[in-house]
Amino acid sequence: MTTSPPRSSPLGLHRVIEPPGVLPQAAWCLDASPEIAADEVRVRVDRLNLDAASYRQLRETYAADPDKVRAAVLDIIATRGKMQNPVTGSGGMLTGTVEEAGADSPLGLQPGQRVATLVSLTLTPLVITDSLYRWDGLSEQIPCEGHAILFARSIAAVLPDDLPVPLSLAVMDVCGAPALTMRVVTAGSTVLIIGAAGKSGSLSAVAARRAGAAAVIGVVPTQAEAALLREHDGLVDEIVIADARDPVTLAGKVQAAGGPADVTVVCVDATGCEGGAILSTAQGGTVIFFSMATSFSAAALGAEGMAADVTMLVGNGYVPGHADLALDLIRTTPELRALFERRVAHEGGQP
Amino acid sequence: MTTSPPRSSPLGLHRVIEPPGVLPQAAWCLDASPEIAADEVRVRVDRLNLDAASYRQLRETYAADPDKVRAAVLDIIATRGKMQNPVTGSGGMLTGTVEEAGADSPLGLQPGQRVATLVSLTLTPLVITDSLYRWDGLSEQIPCEGHAILFARSIAAVLPDDLPVPLSLAVMDVCGAPALTMRVVTAGSTVLIIGAAGKSGSLSAVAARRAGAAAVIGVVPTQAEAALLREHDGLVDEIVIADARDPVTLAGKVQAAGGPADVTVVCVDATGCEGGAILSTAQGGTVIFFSMATSFSAAALGAEGMAADVTMLVGNGYVPGHADLALDLIRTTPELRALFERRVAHEGGQP
Repeated sequence: MTTSPPRSSPLGLHRVIEPPGVLPQAAWCLDASPEIAADEVRVRVDRLNLDAASYRQLRETYAADPDKVRAAVLDIIATRGKMQNPVTGSGGMLTGTVEEAGADSPLGLQPGQRVATLVSLTLTPLVITDSLYRWDGLSEQIPCEGHAILFARSIAAVLPDDLPVPLSLAVMDVCGAPALTMRVVTAGSTVLIIGAAGKSGSLSAVAARRAGAAAVIGVVPTQAEAALLREHDGLVDEIVIADARDPVTLAGKVQAAGGPADVTVVCVDATGCEGGAILSTAQGGTVIFFSMATSFSAAALGAEGMAADVTMLVGNGYVPGHADLALDLIRTTPELRALFERRVAHEGGQP
Repeated sequence: MTTSPPRSSPLGLHRVIEPPGVLPQAAWCLDASPEIAADEVRVRVDRLNLDAASYRQLRETYAADPDKVRAAVLDIIATRGKMQNPVTGSGGMLTGTVEEAGADSPLGLQPGQRVATLVSLTLTPLVITDSLYRWDGLSEQIPCEGHAILFARSIAAVLPDDLPVPLSLAVMDVCGAPALTMRVVTAGSTVLIIGAAGKSGSLSAVAARRAGAAAVIGVVPTQAEAALLREHDGLVDEIVIADARDPVTLAGKVQAAGGPADVTVVCVDATGCEGGAILSTAQGGTVIFFSMATSFSAAALGAEGMAADVTMLVGNGYVPGHADLALDLIRTTPELRALFERRVAHEGGQP
């Protein structure tokens, strides 16, 4: 036992037990002991939100037996010192209250603040102390007691008092997209949002307008999505209904709607949208890929094959201040908030 | 038969026969007829250079029987109007002489110029007229006669008189990397090249220096590669020997060599290099991924998991003027040319 705080790494390398030397996300087992280093923060956890893929795997493996699912989650956390499903490799996020913040922590958190982690549970040291007795095992939302450790380079956002928690969490989940969009878009430009009626797409559309875009063109796949976008007036200037996987048709319709775009933001999780995004973007323009379904080689070879001089960005989910920016867009744009609340209610209503 | 030139699209959509409406690269069959539109160029082809994956597939399928391999290539070109291996989907490139350039072609080519295409054979209309009788079927290099069509947005480079053709082709094959590196690097910055002793890596290192980098750090995997780099003095300032797939070790060694980097260029074709590249790059810096082995999701999630505020670029193989720039770097940097000539000779000596 040592009484002085351990030497710490901003990435949490000092918490890695096995195998030594890897990043916490790649580790099999983390040290989740509650004593914090000078640059760490300890959070009293009240809720885990499991990644959808992880929860589905657990439920299917244990035939939706609540006791078995609960035991499995407890076993993973006790064994690994973090909630990382060994089959899917995925984690989720948590909410809680700041219990102790080290003097050298750069996160700016104060004891008593209610926070959500924006880095994955797969790299967050975690201990559960209540045996998850309040969890019915039937949803991804796990009410619980325990503690978690944040490193100097972890990301956590203070949950606002003025917004419902489910709404805040939904906004924070996609807050990297509007932040990067705002950084890239310059005043007077034409911006194309592929998947404009979705959560990251609608936030990015409003961010583009905030950055001074002269025109925002939104692409949606169906008449129903177009109607949803029309109901929430002012999020985009032009609506294009097209299959984003068909480059020639998409580019033609975007052209007719005022394109090509100076900046194109891809926010749909369908595969095969790279060519259409590139072809709808002007020479010298930028494409930001936020879809996890993006193929690196399809983007690189597609641009080369079309002699497209476009800058292509991998959508980084982290931009400093991203959560505050996205929450501010929601607060100050009633139509955006209304669309978001419908999306959140709809998701909550599904099994 | 029509006597006036057909209506044309800069992307070659007018040459697509089947299925209608797709881009030439995605088409099953192109119209390779020799009459050119006003913005097209016809090239008298003298050599095809098959993509390595395509040639390997053909050779294995036909048990390296030269007559059968030759017949298969002829059949593909006759059937499809282009050389796109239906199994691998890949093509290659060609060299030839400009025969006719349409009045509206933006490529700036003149009849009689010796050129190489920098867009793939998979989208280039092609006719072979000599039955490939001069090809022994035993290498990727096919001497031939025939013609090919370049669209307004095709890319072709004039082969220089002062350099051997194999050297020029090797340089052109990777010329996107130094061009994008030069565009991104600003004066006084620290640049990290992962895979610095390779073709795209060494070109990018010299491009970074040309752009005014204060320090260029080169990462190589082995002592042998480090020795090669040391022999060709001045290409980099510091040499780091490390496994680029081990983020923590790599970042530590880069730090010791003067990092983190403002700009990191990934030029190795190994998987799993995303985390190390991100971790070796300063907050606010840029990572350019030129490796086709890059995983989009590993890059996006890796940066988010480390709260790394880095701009991540998909290495676009096309930047205007890229071939001329790369050839100029070779001409004006004797050590770079010496390294390249060794690489080219070595490749030529392998089966």
